[in-house]
This record gives sequence, C-alpha cells and structure tokens, in this order.
Amino acid sequence: MAGPTGSVGGVTTPQGYRASGSSAGIKANKGLDLALLVSDTPATAAAVFTTNRAQAAPILVSREHLSASGGVARAIVVNSGCANACTGDEGLRAARDMAAETARLVTCSIAEVLVASTGVIGVALPIEKIRAALPAAFRELASDRGSMAARAIMTTDPFPKEAAADLKIGGRTIRIGGMAKGSGMIEPMMATMLGFLTTDADVPQPLLARALREVVDDTFNAITVDGECSTNDSVMLLANGASGASIDVGNYDAFVGGLHAVCRELALGIVRGGEGATKLVTVTVTGAASEARRAAKAIANSLLVKTAIHGGDPNWGRLIAVAGRANVAFELSRAAVMIGSTTLFRDGRPHDEAAAEAAEYLKGAEIALSVDLGSGPASSTVWTCDLSAEYVRINAEYRT
Amino acid sequence: MAGPTGSVGGVTTPQGYRASGSSAGIKANKGLDLALLVSDTPATAAAVFTTNRAQAAPILVSREHLSASGGVARAIVVNSGCANACTGDEGLRAARDMAAETARLVTCSIAEVLVASTGVIGVALPIEKIRAALPAAFRELASDRGSMAARAIMTTDPFPKEAAADLKIGGRTIRIGGMAKGSGMIEPMMATMLGFLTTDADVPQPLLARALREVVDDTFNAITVDGECSTNDSVMLLANGASGASIDVGNYDAFVGGLHAVCRELALGIVRGGEGATKLVTVTVTGAASEARRAAKAIANSLLVKTAIHGGDPNWGRLIAVAGRANVAFELSRAAVMIGSTTLFRDGRPHDEAAAEAAEYLKGAEIALSVDLGSGPASSTVWTCDLSAEYVRINAEYRT
Repeated sequence: MAGPTGSVGGVTTPQGYRASGSSAGIKANKGLDLALLVSDTPATAAAVFTTNRAQAAPILVSREHLSASGGVARAIVVNSGCANACTGDEGLRAARDMAAETARLVTCSIAEVLVASTGVIGVALPIEKIRAALPAAFRELASDRGSMAARAIMTTDPFPKEAAADLKIGGRTIRIGGMAKGSGMIEPMMATMLGFLTTDADVPQPLLARALREVVDDTFNAITVDGECSTNDSVMLLANGASGASIDVGNYDAFVGGLHAVCRELALGIVRGGEGATKLVTVTVTGAASEARRAAKAIANSLLVKTAIHGGDPNWGRLIAVAGRANVAFELSRAAVMIGSTTLFRDGRPHDEAAAEAAEYLKGAEIALSVDLGSGPASSTVWTCDLSAEYVRINAEYRT
Repeated sequence: MAGPTGSVGGVTTPQGYRASGSSAGIKANKGLDLALLVSDTPATAAAVFTTNRAQAAPILVSREHLSASGGVARAIVVNSGCANACTGDEGLRAARDMAAETARLVTCSIAEVLVASTGVIGVALPIEKIRAALPAAFRELASDRGSMAARAIMTTDPFPKEAAADLKIGGRTIRIGGMAKGSGMIEPMMATMLGFLTTDADVPQPLLARALREVVDDTFNAITVDGECSTNDSVMLLANGASGASIDVGNYDAFVGGLHAVCRELALGIVRGGEGATKLVTVTVTGAASEARRAAKAIANSLLVKTAIHGGDPNWGRLIAVAGRANVAFELSRAAVMIGSTTLFRDGRPHDEAAAEAAEYLKGAEIALSVDLGSGPASSTVWTCDLSAEYVRINAEYRT
C-alpha cells in the first residue's frame, strides 16, 4: 500500500469539489450556520447514519434520496443551530424543501442532494431563512472554501475539524478530504455526529460503502465524549472520479488506508474538542476474551475515570472497578493497569510506589490508559477526553 | 397489610441490637471510621452483594461466613476510609483478622461475623489500627448509638442515612431499622453501596433472603448517582426475633412493606446525598414493550439530562434522544415527555409553549421526569440526582 502523506486540507482538497460557508441567521449570534458542498459532476455516494431510534428529519430524507438515486449525489447541504429532530411532519417538509432549493440551484435531481442538520433538538427549522440564504451560498461556492464550510457546521465545537490525504493509485494521485463537527452528545453507535468526506477517485458504490463502514467502525465509532448517541449522527462520502484514477479490489486497501488516516484525524479532533475537554485520552484494553470494545467504552465513559484524569490522579482502582462491572470476562488475579508506561497494578497487587511517576505523566495533554483483563487474546482502542466542570457549565447553560 | 408507620430511628431501633461508631485512625482527618453492630442473640442473616467482578476482600469473606454459618450472624463490623479492594492475599487476611478480633470480643464463632469496607480502592487496610480500636468500639456498644454507627460508615456522604419502621404482626409490634452510605460510584447492579438492616422479628432464613432480594430490586437497585457499580456494594439484613413475633407466608407481605419503606428512605437518602447533588430526580418510564428499567436507567445516567436538570433547562429533546438510543422499543410518533405535570412533547409534536412553566418547576429541589415510549404496557421508576461542577471537583480531587 502507498501510504497516505500530508494532512493539510479538507473537503475541497480533492479535485472537482466546491464549498461555501455562510450565515442564514439560524444561530442567534449570526455566526456561520449554512454549509454547501457541491461536486462538479455526479459523485458516487455512501453514508452511515445514527442508530438512535429517534432519527431526525434530515436523516430520513438523506436515506430516501440515497435509495432513490442508487447512491449518486451532486450536493450536500448542512445547517447548524437547529437539529430538525423531533419536529414531526413539518420538520420532514422543511428538510425536503432544503434539498429541493439546493437541487434547483445546482440543477440536479432532488434525490441527488443530501441534507444534514445539527443543533438543538425539538425546535422548528427556520426553512424560510435557509431558502433565502441558499442562492448566495451557491454563488459563493469555491474550491478554496472548504474551511468556511467546516466552520459553518460547528455548534459548541471550539475549533473546526478538517483533514486530507493523498496517495498514488496506478501512477495517478488521488486525494481524500473531510470535515467533521462534535462536540457533545458524542458516542456514535453507527456513524458519528456530522462528518463529510470527499475523494476524486472513481469508486464503485459497493466498494465505497464497504470502505466507509470499515473505516468508520475504527475511527468515528471508537470515540466517545459523553456516552450520548445523537439523533442526527451522519457520515457521508462522495467520490467523483475527477482524478482519473479508479479504485478496485487490487488497490482497495490503499484507498482504505488513506480514508482511515483522514477519518482518524477528524475523529480525534472531535475528542480533542469535546465539550470542556482538556486532555485526549487513549484507552486500550488487552487480554479480553471477547468484547474488548465494550470494556474500553465502559472505561472511556466512566465519570470517575474521566474526573480522575482531569484531576491528574493516578487512581487505577477506578479503572479496575469499571473493568469489573463492564459485563466482560475479567480475572483480577491476572489483570494489569498501566498509565502511560507506568504499571500501577499487576497480578493482583498494587504498585503504588509508581504513583508519583504516573501523576507526573498525567500532567500532559495526551494520556494513554491500558487495562489487561487477563482473560484472552482480544484487544480494542477507543478515544475519549477528560470530564471537567466546564462540561457541566456548557450543558447546564446550553439553551439559556 | 398493617402499613409501616414512622421513620425516626435506625439499626438499633429494633429490640436486641447495640451499635457504636468510633475512630480507628484510618481516615486522615481522624473522623469516625469504625462501626460495630451486634445482636444480643444469634440473628438470622441475609445479604446481597455487588455484581462487580473485582469483588473486594470483605465481600469474599462475608460470603464465606454466611455460607459457613448457614445464614446466622451476631455482629457486623465495618470500616470506612479504605475499601480493602484489589489488595490481594494480604487484603483477604486483613478482612479475616477484622472478623476474628470482633468474634473474640463478642464471644461468637468467626463465621457469625460479617465484614464490610468502603473508601479508596487498592490501598492496604491498616488492620493493626482496627485491631487496636475494636476493644473500645465493643465497650461503647449501646442501644442508642445507631446514629454513631451511621456516621462511622460515611465517606463523601454529606449526611448520614438512617430509617426505621414499625408494624403490628399478630398483635405484637415489630421494628425494622437500617443505615446506608453513598455517595459516588453508585449504580448498584445487585445490591448497593453499604446498607445494614435490622429487625426484631423472627424470620426464617429463606423468607428473609427472599424479602431482601425483592425489596432491594425496587429500592437500592433502582437508584443511580453516576452509573458506577462499586467493588464493595453490600446490603446485609439481620433478624433476631427479640420482638417475639414471627414472620411466615401469611404476614410476609406486611413485613416486605415495612422493609420496603425503610430501604426506600435509605436509597433516596443516598441519591439526595449524591456527590455534588442539588436535586432529587424521579425518572418514570411508561409505555415500554419490555425493559422499562433499562430505558429509565439510561435517562437517569445521561450526562446531558443531568446537566440540563442542574441548569433548570426543560430540554426535553435530550430525554427523547436518550430514549432513542437506549436499545429499547421506541415509537417517536406515539412518545411523550413530561417534566412535572407539564407535557412538552406528545404524538410527535413539541409543546414548547409550556417551556416557561416547566422551567419554573425545575427550580424546585425534587423533580419528576416522565417518558412514555409509546410501545407497550411496561413501566419502571428510578431515582437519580443532577450533575454539578461540584461532582467533578469532588472526584478530581478525591485522593489529593
């Protein structure tokens, strides 16, 4: 596999894509809240959506459109500031209108437009504001405005998340770009929050869908900020073939490698920018009989683990307590806990003499926690952040 | 059923029990940290313990003793300030020594002593301090010192939890008393944290064990502070028959009613005293196809729900989002959300005109949340507290 190189850029880094980010007046603060992404030619499209049973209107509409178009899209239109979730038939009409107005401007079929929304649940989408703002958003489309689009999909995110990679496929360079937003209600169970990916490779739809599923499982689905799976999680991937290079089973692994690099960077960006986060925490579970992911997620979602990390306390007993309640095979007498490269518990015995070393390590901004369950060969890595009083402040005041 | 009356009192309210609370010097602040509870005569005993796979040494020892004695106990000895969990063979020896020294003082068999510990995980139990303090703890035993014992089992609890009830059984009065401690690492999956119950009724062991299991399921197992199931959770119940009244299948329901009243008060006390808690939150899920408890627990453990309540924000969309991801049957178009008696969502439509009324209600200290899943006849009620910045402060600084 030709490894991916570089990581500067975003959704308009691949050839043949234009984007814009503008303000439709949905957010009270007049910030950017409308993102438009258009492929110059019809692109093969794949997407994964939230497993939440309260699916938002844009999810229902995007599913319909992907099915009706057979996996082809020209444009993605996204608003922030309003999730258009739990909004009934009126919300469904608004999501359809948003796609229809975009299709009129792009001159494509309505089914070739995918829609996404993020923000407060249960508030009606101000569709007239969006309709009024779309013509300007369309006029502003440019191949160097991916970063504007990345800013327009933000809610409580402290910074935009963009990534890109390029790789050689049969003598040609292909590019993969992406943008994503967090930053609370994050524990994707199928896809995550909002992520938008582009490539100028030509990829058959079944291969594109498979690549997206595989990569999402180890990137967006391996992160958690607060254990909350939202009503609007979506990751969409467009492939327009503008590079002239085609992906087939022979170079599929190389393509997946590039896609993985982009998605991993975006996923870690979501965690780094988690609400109130001050540290990026990598949780690795080894020695599992099975369900290593379940144990890793339980540790990553533990309030007591997250607050201990926030306080710089090498309180390994909390890691053991979570492993013990995670409903997975666990052998205390063969278990081990490491913080960074420091062993604090092994073979049933504490090593508290190493606590000072671990406390020093915990002052850093990137923390690795490892728990060996002592029960088998399986392992899993997930990413999370610490839990700070700032998370409480953000979420106690979100709508006020 | 003769309903339980009154609720002043604790573990020494029933006849034939004496208790003490003293300081063995385990806690750095010299606070009370050693509780002793003795029945004047051998009592029938039943207990439920944590389902955490990393079971603490006192749990292993108490299980052994209950099994060896055939469900008979004279004394319970409890220390706070150290959980004696993840402490290997040395911890097991310390728990046995604690029981042995108590048995010597009480002049009973070692198997008739139950032990419990609560505090930091992974620190060696200072057994010499406990051994040195036990003779004085034994001398201080008195039938009016239940409250001292209730104070001696506290860790981060802001107040002691005690309750008692009395009821008429065949012309005689029997009493049921109890004490419990919280207040973090609380989502019992079998029993909860530490709870100690006494009665002066005579109850056959199988009936006593059944009553405890039934009542715990709807009280201690229906609360959550932070979704964390500890390594040390135990609830123990002694029945010494000192009242002269016997429980059989004919008056079993009345006994269970009294036991329920005591356990419910203690369980709600744990939630009210949850780390950083400012509000007691009752979560009721109705309209479930099955697994109503799972949905109620998911809502009660949601960081976004708990922070919204803390902030006084009637953000019903978060309740819907959790219900949707709880992996239970859920029909958005037939679902409903109520905060207090105010309906905010019903039949697929928001009722945001009622938001101001709900916001006013949320200023109170006792909050009821109801979610109808629109999917069936099952229901469940659980209790939790809000999540405040104070919880983060307590748990970021717990060992420092």
